[in-house]
Amino acid sequence: MTALEGPQAVAFAQSVLDSQPFSVLVGARVEHMAPDGVVVRVPFRAELTQHHGFAHGGVQAALADIALTFMGAAALGPSVLTSEFKINFLRPGVGDALVARGSVISATRRQAVTRCDIFAVQGGQGKLVATALGTIVVADVAPAGGGA
Amino acid sequence: MTALEGPQAVAFAQSVLDSQPFSVLVGARVEHMAPDGVVVRVPFRAELTQHHGFAHGGVQAALADIALTFMGAAALGPSVLTSEFKINFLRPGVGDALVARGSVISATRRQAVTRCDIFAVQGGQGKLVATALGTIVVADVAPAGGGA
Amino acid sequence: MTALEGPQAVAFAQSVLDSQPFSVLVGARVEHMAPDGVVVRVPFRAELTQHHGFAHGGVQAALADIALTFMGAAALGPSVLTSEFKINFLRPGVGDALVARGSVISATRRQAVTRCDIFAVQGGQGKLVATALGTIVVADVAPAGGGA
Amino acid sequence: MTALEGPQAVAFAQSVLDSQPFSVLVGARVEHMAPDGVVVRVPFRAELTQHHGFAHGGVQAALADIALTFMGAAALGPSVLTSEFKINFLRPGVGDALVARGSVISATRRQAVTRCDIFAVQGGQGKLVATALGTIVVADVAPAGGGA
Repeated sequence: MTALEGPQAVAFAQSVLDSQPFSVLVGARVEHMAPDGVVVRVPFRAELTQHHGFAHGGVQAALADIALTFMGAAALGPSVLTSEFKINFLRPGVGDALVARGSVISATRRQAVTRCDIFAVQGGQGKLVATALGTIVVADVAPAGGGA
Repeated sequence: MTALEGPQAVAFAQSVLDSQPFSVLVGARVEHMAPDGVVVRVPFRAELTQHHGFAHGGVQAALADIALTFMGAAALGPSVLTSEFKINFLRPGVGDALVARGSVISATRRQAVTRCDIFAVQGGQGKLVATALGTIVVADVAPAGGGA
Repeated sequence: MTALEGPQAVAFAQSVLDSQPFSVLVGARVEHMAPDGVVVRVPFRAELTQHHGFAHGGVQAALADIALTFMGAAALGPSVLTSEFKINFLRPGVGDALVARGSVISATRRQAVTRCDIFAVQGGQGKLVATALGTIVVADVAPAGGGA
Repeated sequence: MTALEGPQAVAFAQSVLDSQPFSVLVGARVEHMAPDGVVVRVPFRAELTQHHGFAHGGVQAALADIALTFMGAAALGPSVLTSEFKINFLRPGVGDALVARGSVISATRRQAVTRCDIFAVQGGQGKLVATALGTIVVADVAPAGGGA
């Protein structure tokens, strides 16, 4: 994956998401996948809300897990697992979609520290609703645990 | 909710979960709800997995969000929102269910710091798969954001 | 402090640091203080190291606490306290100084989520050694707790 | 260190702290060091305060870094480094000493997830002032970065 960029990288990343039943359940779509950034989108639908009609915090956390992990995979290669992350909820999320924009803060051969911002997008306008910071590590064996 | 304990508290908490479409989608069930601890269970099913058949990190994060927030609600009252949390993934999760056991580290009138451990339970045996630490605050207005 | 920018803001912020004996012990100096960012510098000296001659993780954490809190104060006003933060250590820190560059991710009337990167600077070149993300809240009473 | 317990382990851990100039500057003392828990004490003194006379958040963060890392070393062996941690500040810290009680949540061969609670102790009574959760990893080379 380190060698992939552009449409191929997006297609490959989407195929990984498509092989994760929970990512399919959430409805996550990869829009951009490169060592300098990833974009993952979750179209808004009623099934993703809490009792006030906003995106459930758990959806935002799941999207953060996916975006942080895919950012790590873009930096380190496809065989990674997520060690940990932190998420701050900033305001209620409602709109057409939740869009996570991931970037890499630091990457060595075996570990990447990645961050992502999550936006609630409505009519082309995005409002920041959450931010996250995490640690992704190369899996010594078949990956297991985090989002990828 | 602060005045409730026992079966009434569990029933009330479950009714909140049932009013959150995403919690229903995940399949979360409240088993215990008291100021000294909460237990939230997610029966394992294929839809919750990643591509190796383990529970997706996003499911664990969503369950942590729910358990941390409900623990905050048990300590502070029902009108709360989750400010932030951190989760560490410890090992792959597989079994009959994921069970989150939440407890409160510190609570003042307006804020609770809560933690939870997530276990993968199989045949009555639980294995710790993740741990989380978060901050829950009283909502000044109608709650929005985190899990409750 | 919200109304202050430029040299006045730096002088005021430094006066706060100078009134904190621990910040004096660490040797923290404010170099920039504005709603769009803060810069806090700690000149490197032997007393700040661990047993391999690198900056101790505790110094980096203390500097993160100061920079995150001052960034919150620049956004919210001087009476704030730090609710929580997370720090990731990226590589050993050695050089002429540790420099923290803080920025604000989101600020409402009562809370700011702030981040900072810590660089080890040597001969004008900076190397990223740590990154942090935190929550700063307005103090209802005289501030107490976090770095400012 | 994994084989050490009791007075020998405490003496060895204290010798590591004594070789860290910053830990000496803070005044950290190891009181207990075993795979099931560590206790690190920092006697309170004016140099460790912020401008209201409470323990500076940076001191609490530095103590958390030390306690989390030493807990990791007690579980994994002496050659470790701290990957990251999160700290929540709960209330102002003042008294005779700050005492951090560390424990291990999960340890594998190469990584430990550790937590610690920090108490402000006065006249034999302790009040919880902060809690922290972190990730400690085995250093492949000479350790550098975190507190040990």
